[in-house]
Amino acid sequence: MSSIPVMEIFGPTIQGEGMVIGQKTMFVRTAGCDYSCVWCDSAFTWDGSAKEEIVPMSAAEIWKKLNELAAENFSHVTISGGNPGLLRNLAELIGLLKENGVAVAIETQGSCWQDWFLLVDNLTISPKPPSSKMNTNDQVLDNIIARLTAENRQDHISLKVVVFDEDDFQYAKSIANRYPEVPFFLQAGNDDITSKDHAALTGKLLKKYAWLTERAMADKQLTNVRVLPQLHAFVWGNKRGV
Amino acid sequence: MSSIPVMEIFGPTIQGEGMVIGQKTMFVRTAGCDYSCVWCDSAFTWDGSAKEEIVPMSAAEIWKKLNELAAENFSHVTISGGNPGLLRNLAELIGLLKENGVAVAIETQGSCWQDWFLLVDNLTISPKPPSSKMNTNDQVLDNIIARLTAENRQDHISLKVVVFDEDDFQYAKSIANRYPEVPFFLQAGNDDITSKDHAALTGKLLKKYAWLTERAMADKQLTNVRVLPQLHAFVWGNKRGV
Ligand code: SF4
Ligand code: SF4
Repeated sequence: MSSIPVMEIFGPTIQGEGMVIGQKTMFVRTAGCDYSCVWCDSAFTWDGSAKEEIVPMSAAEIWKKLNELAAENFSHVTISGGNPGLLRNLAELIGLLKENGVAVAIETQGSCWQDWFLLVDNLTISPKPPSSKMNTNDQVLDNIIARLTAENRQDHISLKVVVFDEDDFQYAKSIANRYPEVPFFLQAGNDDITSKDHAALTGKLLKKYAWLTERAMADKQLTNVRVLPQLHAFVWGNKRGV
Repeated sequence: MSSIPVMEIFGPTIQGEGMVIGQKTMFVRTAGCDYSCVWCDSAFTWDGSAKEEIVPMSAAEIWKKLNELAAENFSHVTISGGNPGLLRNLAELIGLLKENGVAVAIETQGSCWQDWFLLVDNLTISPKPPSSKMNTNDQVLDNIIARLTAENRQDHISLKVVVFDEDDFQYAKSIANRYPEVPFFLQAGNDDITSKDHAALTGKLLKKYAWLTERAMADKQLTNVRVLPQLHAFVWGNKRGV
């Protein structure tokens, strides 16, 4: 039985973004990422600053912990990171959750393939835009989307691009137009991930969201799109573990 | 060619609520409702206050108007009300939109059946809670859900209940548990539909949304649920036509 590097387990709370925004869910956050986006809002999962919090856990131990936290009060689990897509052995946890009637959501930037992508109920692939300072390997991403669509997973997947500025928006458009068969989401970026002034943060995020909405409405090359903010940041600011 | 009573046509803008929250869409708002919810945020569609704005339009005229407003800049149309579910002749408009590759979303409280419900890509049925002072006919609603699920429309429909208080929450739970096979959404109610103070309104709405989220997270009888606010009210306040 192989172990999974777990950073935190919490919930139930709502999923604040993306294809199942608002969903009541538990979170299992895994440690480790192959990227280092300049604006990463969970850098503690990979930059060493919280490495003493990482606990290697088996699928059974994670299941036990979820039930200790919220017995009979969840039917959906989100595995987030870091990049959970790095962990080949997640198949066992996903299988255990699904055996127990629990739906599974996972987000990854799409830098590598895992066979268990085909088992995930809500799989978000979020390639990173120029402002992250990361480079997407187009061939790897093409391959991932091709395998998912070949297996008819369109209703279970989405592409999501976080947008901070006009360059990011152009990048997002190129992704949307490269994979027109996949539901596409734009997400307004949070460029103030340390602010403790909740009201000021909300105002700033709303302004950013309004800009992105107007930008997307004005662009004829992007019609089938959903534009969303990060709801949890409106409600809880930059607090961790909610 | 029969005509449709149209109150307003606008967009593209985002869908601010429900199953396709964030979707870039055009709006066609029809006049007339068989209910009179005390907190209705579009009472002007049925209370006579804007009756001189109602224009009887054919499906072809609506299609033309949509293209005048936003040629080549939309692939999704939301038909809202009032209660569009009252209009038997919407089938023609829905057909025309779909022939042109445009997806269609409609919201109705579920007080009557229309055969064209089976053609709608995103159909929201939103029975009204006690605070509305309306009474749901359970048999009619049972029938609607039964016909939709018999035709395998589960991926194209959702139930949504607006919640203002604890009584509404209990009602919402009863709906979720009566139709477990249908995706279920809770929506935080806006009890200040006249405020022009945008920042104050946003603060109030966020508080209401936080309450509803916490309420839903605490309840073991409601696990598979999505809890959402009205995004457009955060961004544009109570303004009409955006
Ligand atoms: S891919 Fe995600 S977790 Fe990794 S650095 Fe970028 S934002 Fe952070
Ligand atoms: S059913 Fe909808 S449109 Fe009709 S009165 Fe109620 S809230 Fe208003």
